[in-house]
Amino acid sequence: MQDRRGFLKTLGFTVVGTGVLANEKLHAAALNSVSVLSNGVGSKMKMTFYPYELQLNHVFTVASFSRTTTPTVQLQIEYDGLVGYGEASMPPYLGESIESVMAFLKKVDLGQFSDPFLLEDILTYVDGVAPGNHAAKAAVDIALHDLTGKMMQTPWHKIWGLNKQNTPSTSFTIGIDSADVVKQKTLEAADRFNVLKVKMGLDNDKEMIQTIRQVSSLPIAVDVNQGWKDKHHALDMIHWLKEQGIVMVEQPMPKEQLEDMAWLTQHSPLPTFADESLQRLGDVSKMKGLFSGINIKLMKCTGMREAYKMMNLARALDMKVMIGCMTETSCAVSAAAQLSPGVDFADLDGNLLIGNDLYKGMEIIDGKITLNDAPGLGVIKI
Amino acid sequence: MQDRRGFLKTLGFTVVGTGVLANEKLHAAALNSVSVLSNGVGSKMKMTFYPYELQLNHVFTVASFSRTTTPTVQLQIEYDGLVGYGEASMPPYLGESIESVMAFLKKVDLGQFSDPFLLEDILTYVDGVAPGNHAAKAAVDIALHDLTGKMMQTPWHKIWGLNKQNTPSTSFTIGIDSADVVKQKTLEAADRFNVLKVKMGLDNDKEMIQTIRQVSSLPIAVDVNQGWKDKHHALDMIHWLKEQGIVMVEQPMPKEQLEDMAWLTQHSPLPTFADESLQRLGDVSKMKGLFSGINIKLMKCTGMREAYKMMNLARALDMKVMIGCMTETSCAVSAAAQLSPGVDFADLDGNLLIGNDLYKGMEIIDGKITLNDAPGLGVIKI
Repeated sequence: MQDRRGFLKTLGFTVVGTGVLANEKLHAAALNSVSVLSNGVGSKMKMTFYPYELQLNHVFTVASFSRTTTPTVQLQIEYDGLVGYGEASMPPYLGESIESVMAFLKKVDLGQFSDPFLLEDILTYVDGVAPGNHAAKAAVDIALHDLTGKMMQTPWHKIWGLNKQNTPSTSFTIGIDSADVVKQKTLEAADRFNVLKVKMGLDNDKEMIQTIRQVSSLPIAVDVNQGWKDKHHALDMIHWLKEQGIVMVEQPMPKEQLEDMAWLTQHSPLPTFADESLQRLGDVSKMKGLFSGINIKLMKCTGMREAYKMMNLARALDMKVMIGCMTETSCAVSAAAQLSPGVDFADLDGNLLIGNDLYKGMEIIDGKITLNDAPGLGVIKI
Repeated sequence: MQDRRGFLKTLGFTVVGTGVLANEKLHAAALNSVSVLSNGVGSKMKMTFYPYELQLNHVFTVASFSRTTTPTVQLQIEYDGLVGYGEASMPPYLGESIESVMAFLKKVDLGQFSDPFLLEDILTYVDGVAPGNHAAKAAVDIALHDLTGKMMQTPWHKIWGLNKQNTPSTSFTIGIDSADVVKQKTLEAADRFNVLKVKMGLDNDKEMIQTIRQVSSLPIAVDVNQGWKDKHHALDMIHWLKEQGIVMVEQPMPKEQLEDMAWLTQHSPLPTFADESLQRLGDVSKMKGLFSGINIKLMKCTGMREAYKMMNLARALDMKVMIGCMTETSCAVSAAAQLSPGVDFADLDGNLLIGNDLYKGMEIIDGKITLNDAPGLGVIKI
């Protein structure tokens, strides 16, 4: 197997060196001897995985609970001398756990597939192994993308035809805290980021913004996490936020309040984005008319394949797109970043919040998501 | 440039031979020295094109006119020692011509783009050069896909994650003629194909089907070309056709009759497909509720990139998908065939109808679309 691949690569080199005509001959040879270009015929995909607990740099507080770690499962798929990396991240509020992910992955048999390129077949099978388990499914999807990207010696943003110059800046979340701490964190963040993010929907919504505005005029994205229950209050808040230089509002109202949400988006001077209201590809068209755009997260939508389709579907429906993440290593964050040249907003700070990253991949340079040219996800183990 | 590529391929070969760990080192090197993996920095894409008249094996008759040729423009894009092939086919009723395509392509300046992988940017630019000109735009799109697929040494059905085992059979059209000729053509076609296609909407609709049924029980796809003006007549016909073993009905009613079409699809026992009712990605969601599915043609939708997005959008909207073509060489037909593992029906017989094909590519074997493993479109010049 290795010899055959090696032979082909050498052949490829020789032929490229002699120009177009010789390339035609290579393709003619491939056409007449189909098996020659089939990578790894006879070899099998080998999937391995293990639990890994992310250590958060700061205590993470959302509504009723705090935590200092995030459970993940790290995964790899080996095939024909290459290895693809994937990851499932399981913040507790989404309902998956180390136990559920490990149990799910143990049921997944990739050995039945001859070729990692059969992504539609493989991921349809994985999706059918059990309902839910979106993060576990994403781990397999991400590893297969890393693997096939490496087989093509091409990063996925290029395979998708995206221009890495077009990546957006990521937002960076300023946690709710005392005024002095908020001001200090804002000043630190303003040195490194171009967009701030604030969680709202509590009693101190206006205070947080006013405190930040005392020390920074950076654009702010607001995530309400379904916190506003009354549409008139929500619209008043959005008008006030617009005056404060806020640029978008995520999930302003509870996901059950469809009519209120449609009314709010229709009247809102800022774009609204669905987060809790959607999970997967099948949900996207239902968001049309309710929100201006959607927030895509790999751990919710089962991975890169569905995320890419969601982005294209939203665009076809004239909707905006943002991409978000959980606290994750640079593996899953770099996977999401491959899509980022195609989105309007990105919230990819998950790997910056942990002290024990396992990978080096996409980087934030001057606040902007910066992709490298390495194949697949563009990550290496560190 | 060649030397650098050659060096990398050789490096890739060596590293693959020594397994996973060494591959990690390759990727680490790529990560730390980004420019190394950039193909063709400094080289430019060179696009050339020329008119080419396809000779039809048989006189082609639709409604009011007959013809024995189809005008096309053949195109190629060279980059970094590789060449990608594309094609525009201009059946007269679609409004493009050799003159319009040549004039459009002369305005296209690919030299401003550093890299053929920037497909979103390049094709957005090409689309903006002038409105319409869908076949001319498709020629550029197809050549860029061939080129980038060759750069990745991978055929597009694999890049898209599709399984080539899942390709459908193509339908083959039995032209309207005297009963004896129809019977003879049906017998000939039945030897080579698994699905027949019949154009309807004229006075002899039932006669054609009855004549074919005297000699063959193969499934039949019916293309009405907007020919039925009354919805009740259309539904009666569809019920009758279902009894005769017809499997689908394309564009039964005029594209302006939206309400009639919605009613017909709701009551139809056979799936209905939009053809004249849609052209591009932006039209797909409007077809939901009007038809069961859509017919995607590269020459109408500006090429493979938009076609792939249309397929995924239709799937996300729970619609069926078919792929069709014009009379084309094996270049454009093979481009369309790359998508075919993802469709319900295929009508890709355009290259079989001409006597002066320029390419060898996808083949029909035992009636089934058969893709090879050669990169890009999987075509070579003959």
